[in-house]
Amino acid sequence: MSGYFFVFDGMDGAGKSTALNGVAASLRRMGHSVVTTREPGGSPLAEQIRECMLGDWSDGVPPQTELLLVFAARAAHMQHTVLPALARGEIVLCDRFIDSSHVYQGVLGGITASWIDQLGTQTIARLPEASFIFDLPVEQASQRLQQRGIENRFDRIDLERMQTIRDAFAQRAQAPSHHLIDASREQSAVHADVLERIEGLLA
Amino acid sequence: MSGYFFVFDGMDGAGKSTALNGVAASLRRMGHSVVTTREPGGSPLAEQIRECMLGDWSDGVPPQTELLLVFAARAAHMQHTVLPALARGEIVLCDRFIDSSHVYQGVLGGITASWIDQLGTQTIARLPEASFIFDLPVEQASQRLQQRGIENRFDRIDLERMQTIRDAFAQRAQAPSHHLIDASREQSAVHADVLERIEGLLA
Repeated sequence: MSGYFFVFDGMDGAGKSTALNGVAASLRRMGHSVVTTREPGGSPLAEQIRECMLGDWSDGVPPQTELLLVFAARAAHMQHTVLPALARGEIVLCDRFIDSSHVYQGVLGGITASWIDQLGTQTIARLPEASFIFDLPVEQASQRLQQRGIENRFDRIDLERMQTIRDAFAQRAQAPSHHLIDASREQSAVHADVLERIEGLLA
Repeated sequence: MSGYFFVFDGMDGAGKSTALNGVAASLRRMGHSVVTTREPGGSPLAEQIRECMLGDWSDGVPPQTELLLVFAARAAHMQHTVLPALARGEIVLCDRFIDSSHVYQGVLGGITASWIDQLGTQTIARLPEASFIFDLPVEQASQRLQQRGIENRFDRIDLERMQTIRDAFAQRAQAPSHHLIDASREQSAVHADVLERIEGLLA
């Protein structure tokens, strides 16, 4: 198994999806084969599982159900999208991964980190070469979210909650192979920073 | 938490769903409040998760994804359907439960029993008072399946596979609070047998 697996993660409004697409375009111009994907989702089955999670259920989605749906989708996404691309020697750029599970289902949802790690061990056959955690002040992230409008229930969050999310991601960024990215800068600077780190890892 | 939680489980074609409906009708005639439900499914969210599992995906459903979907649905079903009914003091009759996970995702799908038990510990807040495991020769089950036509991909099974399923359920039936039910008898005899066991447990 060769290929390279890079994750772009962090709070909503941090600009990770924009950076991911920009970096993908740069890598392609450099001659690399790049697959861009996202979680939850990234395969037809995983996208349908995402729909279950995001549905407007009158009873809500129990935290344990949301967690297991995330990992059910992750297992399918790994099996059907990520691993085949890596086997072809391609570069996979993935929008959100297990750090989001630790933050949203763990810190916010009340699920223990050890249970999330156990689910990870069962479902993730290949860890990312690097995870880029996009970090910026919550006021700035909130402004960006307001500019683009509310997308789904994961975006309906207040500033206090956003600070909890930011802190939890910063904590995750201390793990090996994680990079904390200052996402408060101009888009072009963030893009260049991440691209440089990826080029260093490809070398 | 009062109420009573009974599970009807076993191979397809064993007549457990028919027995469940018959026993429910008898219990209601005796004045009990009865909720009949099924897994995977049994709540709006859980039923949509079931659709993900049963979809005709060109890449198939990875065993780990299927397992996690089953438990995601189970967590929602427990939270939104089973526990509220038990809290109202009602009798819940459920078509399939964790024994099916051990047989289909475990023995057939290659998932270890210990991992399935761990998922059970995380998602099942209340164990059944009794699980009735419907058992009969595979040739007889196969005939019944042919009579009613193939329903979904879980029914598309051959005799050798059915024997593996029968043996795995018989093994599960040795656990505490499990009853092996001879489902090769006339429907009325099976019905009376299960009803008598339930009455004994209600007393």
